[in-house]
Amino acid sequence: MKALVAGGAGFIGSHLIDALLKEGHEVVCIDNFFIGTRANIQYLKGVDNFRFYEQDLTKFDKILNIFEKEKPEYIFHLAANSDIQASAENPMIEYQNTYSTTFNLLECMRRTNVKKLFFASTSAVYGEQMGAEVSEEAVALKPISYYGGAKLGSEAMISAFAYMNDMEVLVFRFPNVIGPRLTHGVIFDFVKRLKADPSHLRILGDGTQSKPYMHVLDLVGAIMRFKDVPAGVSLYNVGVESQTSVTRIAEIVCEKMGLSGIPFEYTGGRGGWKGDVPVFAYDLGKIHAAGWQAEMSSDEAVAKTVEAVI
Amino acid sequence: MKALVAGGAGFIGSHLIDALLKEGHEVVCIDNFFIGTRANIQYLKGVDNFRFYEQDLTKFDKILNIFEKEKPEYIFHLAANSDIQASAENPMIEYQNTYSTTFNLLECMRRTNVKKLFFASTSAVYGEQMGAEVSEEAVALKPISYYGGAKLGSEAMISAFAYMNDMEVLVFRFPNVIGPRLTHGVIFDFVKRLKADPSHLRILGDGTQSKPYMHVLDLVGAIMRFKDVPAGVSLYNVGVESQTSVTRIAEIVCEKMGLSGIPFEYTGGRGGWKGDVPVFAYDLGKIHAAGWQAEMSSDEAVAKTVEAVI
Repeated sequence: MKALVAGGAGFIGSHLIDALLKEGHEVVCIDNFFIGTRANIQYLKGVDNFRFYEQDLTKFDKILNIFEKEKPEYIFHLAANSDIQASAENPMIEYQNTYSTTFNLLECMRRTNVKKLFFASTSAVYGEQMGAEVSEEAVALKPISYYGGAKLGSEAMISAFAYMNDMEVLVFRFPNVIGPRLTHGVIFDFVKRLKADPSHLRILGDGTQSKPYMHVLDLVGAIMRFKDVPAGVSLYNVGVESQTSVTRIAEIVCEKMGLSGIPFEYTGGRGGWKGDVPVFAYDLGKIHAAGWQAEMSSDEAVAKTVEAVI
Repeated sequence: MKALVAGGAGFIGSHLIDALLKEGHEVVCIDNFFIGTRANIQYLKGVDNFRFYEQDLTKFDKILNIFEKEKPEYIFHLAANSDIQASAENPMIEYQNTYSTTFNLLECMRRTNVKKLFFASTSAVYGEQMGAEVSEEAVALKPISYYGGAKLGSEAMISAFAYMNDMEVLVFRFPNVIGPRLTHGVIFDFVKRLKADPSHLRILGDGTQSKPYMHVLDLVGAIMRFKDVPAGVSLYNVGVESQTSVTRIAEIVCEKMGLSGIPFEYTGGRGGWKGDVPVFAYDLGKIHAAGWQAEMSSDEAVAKTVEAVI
């Protein structure tokens, strides 16, 4: 089939392109390099079955042109702002790069009669709710970040488009995803800080903030496995059950960099910044029941990622 | 206080302005007359405490100017596309007039430090789910119309802005609202058709589609009563428990217009159009427990409305 990967030069998107090409699909990639990088897709230059458009998904007419020209059969939508700290200062980033990108893709799908969509959603739609009761169906959604708000808004519009146009949509809500080509986030920050100055490490919060970290190859494997869905929206929480605290991440980074005895300096407080969810866990029963489990634990994913980025 | 009513020249907005002025508040009204009308606010010309801006809420800079000049304390956001049939043909209408208007108002509130918001949401966020289990907290939201999708997306972004900026937000999800100044919908259509040609009445669907119709004065009364809320989002289903079928509406319209023996011609099928919810009922327990009940039943609201519009 011909797949269109929106945000394909990004961290997750570029790994997904690898998997799609490996399975023999044609891939059209759209990216504006706001967060994605040329380096992430450099090695695809000249590859058969791969075509790249440098384009901003907020420009509706340009995107419609690409749909009309390429006639993709399956849209993988991974384009979004992924820097939550940046949008906390300027919510307009989420309106444009997370919500409007989704709307424009949906409207292009409707106008050119494309039926299949994968949408990268997030555990941030749940806000501060956590624990075993946070399943896909049984909880009111109360995002506390503009990012979570824009992703939940995207899900809402997907629900309407899927119904009105008989689309077949897979939505994954996933937690922090890490791995090779990562360009931001706590692991990346710690490595950068320690390379610049290995005399100490400043840590936001009190270090106890604990989250599940999922390896990008586990996520991509799940997308590839579940991508054929019936009409309507098939929604899954995807992730790992284990978690890694910020202090443990710092320890793993130091260990992998061969540094010992580095003093950790905590800024204190409950979380990194307002809108950050300090502890997160949710119900993975639905996807486990469908026969899928992540291969790497949260700590293993962190260790593999540190090895790849140092 | 000084209130800003967005969409104040609309059907519900103009009734809300009446109530706010009556309670002694200053009112600033913004409307672009896409759906609202000059006639709805004509009688307010020259009224002390009332000021009007003809402005499109999708123009962020213009709206920010009004916020900076007027310094409103409470935003009542009733601006939206209310013609679901129109947006079924062109979803961009909902993106612009329902979602983007909300985002722009939230961002203006954030930048100018306004804390209080009322948001007019809708039973359409529930999609096809219905019955006593459809309460505010315990159900996954699956809108089936672009209108419902844009309203739910607005709620999602409100959740994030409220958390990040300590806003005090009242959200009402309400069903079809009717009453004086109504400009579209089934009652309006029947009256118009029968005035043009009283020989018969064409009815979309099989006439059994049944919905709760709420009188606008009941809704405005609830907004005024619940408008002072604590920080965070206070969310209520608001409506009437009784329902009126499309055939019953046709009978009431004929009766009030003094017409008898009019043949009803049904187009057949389950609903009026795709994305229309044929039967709707939901749990009103939360607002009833807070001591509020609608004064008029659905049939009474229909009868009063027909009297006002014929």
